Amino acid sequence: MPATELPPHNHAGRRDAARRRLVERDGTHLLVTDPVNVRYLSGFTGSNGQLLLAADPREDRLITDQRYDERAATSCPDLDRILDRDAIGAALSAAPGATLLVEAAHLSWQQGLALTDRGAEVGVRLDDADGLVEALRLIKDDAEVLRLTEACRITEEALAWLFAEVTAPGVSERELAVTLERAFIDAGADGIAFPSIVASGPNAAIPHHEPTTRTLASGDLLTIDCGAEVDGYHADHTRTVAVGHLDAALRRVHDTVRAAQQLGREAVVAGTTAGDVDAVARAVIEDAGYADAFLHGTGHGVGLRIHEAPSVARGSAATLRAGMALTVEPGIYLSGRGGVRIEDTLVVTADAPAHALTDSSRELLVL
Amino acid sequence: MPATELPPHNHAGRRDAARRRLVERDGTHLLVTDPVNVRYLSGFTGSNGQLLLAADPREDRLITDQRYDERAATSCPDLDRILDRDAIGAALSAAPGATLLVEAAHLSWQQGLALTDRGAEVGVRLDDADGLVEALRLIKDDAEVLRLTEACRITEEALAWLFAEVTAPGVSERELAVTLERAFIDAGADGIAFPSIVASGPNAAIPHHEPTTRTLASGDLLTIDCGAEVDGYHADHTRTVAVGHLDAALRRVHDTVRAAQQLGREAVVAGTTAGDVDAVARAVIEDAGYADAFLHGTGHGVGLRIHEAPSVARGSAATLRAGMALTVEPGIYLSGRGGVRIEDTLVVTADAPAHALTDSSRELLVL
Repeated sequence: MPATELPPHNHAGRRDAARRRLVERDGTHLLVTDPVNVRYLSGFTGSNGQLLLAADPREDRLITDQRYDERAATSCPDLDRILDRDAIGAALSAAPGATLLVEAAHLSWQQGLALTDRGAEVGVRLDDADGLVEALRLIKDDAEVLRLTEACRITEEALAWLFAEVTAPGVSERELAVTLERAFIDAGADGIAFPSIVASGPNAAIPHHEPTTRTLASGDLLTIDCGAEVDGYHADHTRTVAVGHLDAALRRVHDTVRAAQQLGREAVVAGTTAGDVDAVARAVIEDAGYADAFLHGTGHGVGLRIHEAPSVARGSAATLRAGMALTVEPGIYLSGRGGVRIEDTLVVTADAPAHALTDSSRELLVL
Repeated sequence: MPATELPPHNHAGRRDAARRRLVERDGTHLLVTDPVNVRYLSGFTGSNGQLLLAADPREDRLITDQRYDERAATSCPDLDRILDRDAIGAALSAAPGATLLVEAAHLSWQQGLALTDRGAEVGVRLDDADGLVEALRLIKDDAEVLRLTEACRITEEALAWLFAEVTAPGVSERELAVTLERAFIDAGADGIAFPSIVASGPNAAIPHHEPTTRTLASGDLLTIDCGAEVDGYHADHTRTVAVGHLDAALRRVHDTVRAAQQLGREAVVAGTTAGDVDAVARAVIEDAGYADAFLHGTGHGVGLRIHEAPSVARGSAATLRAGMALTVEPGIYLSGRGGVRIEDTLVVTADAPAHALTDSSRELLVL
């Protein structure tokens, strides 16, 4: 299903949801500067765009520059535009006397200091929006889940094809990465969610390995962590396979990660905490004696960003709620020898089990 | 020339140059948080890495996390590492009593406020590095120029091939973009410098148009603005061609942009200002009566970022110096009818003329 056939986003509805939170916070205006939040609320995808959201919807404005004027008119026809390279100045001028919430996590410190000075001059009170839009983005609506589903479908099919048709001794990590990423585009993806991790042999012990010219050899473990992007939504999916014979020790590592990942998947239930999911998966790895070889958290939220809330890590108190999308991806890494990671993307449902957007076999595939 | 054959970067030399500026500013430590600046000074390219540079080079540290430990050991073996997800805390702990310069333009306002509080607790004085590393990056060293040269060579050859072999009535903008970007990878690029702009017919009036399913038709102008990326360095190159017959009015637009671009190129001379280059190109367009149709600046610096200093825009006071890399890309945009942009990437030399990294014909190509 090409992206053009996906149902449209309800940007106006999302803006109204943000507006309700703005009013609850006693703000009159919200300046959205995170490009991902701007996209979420407006559909604008240019490199320079800020959304000024107002308690009175007639005052909503997209602030961009002349390069993007026509594009903005097409992609967000329901938003009036301000063309001004000085977005902060434009926002302050458009909202004199405002109580302006700003995204302190998505303004530079330099911008924050300038905003403080210039805001004081025009009587604008400033407050940190503090994740106002991110809180909405936590729960994916149907249009978003469809895009994540499509991105995950493309990813899973392309990776399965790569293992079946391309992966063999003598092929380099880099060739695998390039071939896989092309398959995403051929299947209709808009791009890659992140540079693919293709890690073979001892390189598989490096969780975020960058593909090299190393060629596959018999006895290697091969980890591929990859994702397609569809209309801004990111898939995230990992499988580790064996090239030829695998020694018993590495097979035991795979068995352990598979068991940890399975229990982690099953723990993704509305009402539990993200920390519980991590704890369940981590306990399996610790009990098998690999506590120090699990070098990262069990997963993370995924959506318009490849890494977003909730963090599925030790002690994470975030409560899982229906509509959250997250990964479960435990791993074990043995320096110099290799490593295993197994990862799926899931959407939390009102009743268990979670809906798995990637769900191919987690049995060890031996090529 | 694949990237692996390019001569290595002198990261230690660049760190020493930054260190001299740190000491001149009476700082004891510099916390580098911009990922591009971290890459420039260390070669580290992971998604989480900060460089703590010290007046005493033995105290230099790369701050990352366990996911990147092995990769950092390989890519920057001469730097000791601190593994800590709380990079600000780690930097403050490693530099008690320091005068710490931080990149206020590359920390969020939230991080800045936290740093202020936590720094006060441990007696660290803070100051804004204020472009300390960017000032070094302005002047490209030989290793950088070679990478820009290679990225531009790949870009120019692939675009010429695309025009000669692929571009024809009936082909869509999106097909052209995907085919071009694959050609970059096939030729050895590490990726694309930015999403290609492929703008045909009336879409060519949109400076930053995103490729659509619109297919080329006879009488169209077609603008392609594209670039390959090699080892982090970005090419930037634009040509506008005619598909079949072009009416006299649009031909005159092309003639005007070509004349503006040629004079702009010739104005790229050490000692002049970037604003002068803009003024020279802009005057040609204004004199031809298109002042309001030139919707952007004449160019920008290019390197590890696709857009970096110096800005080649109206009034830009930056003085051009040998080793700066910048684009010259005037354009005229006529809403509903089409547009023309011609762009080359140049390196300023001690004596004129500048060294053009893209230099294919600027005559109107009629396909």
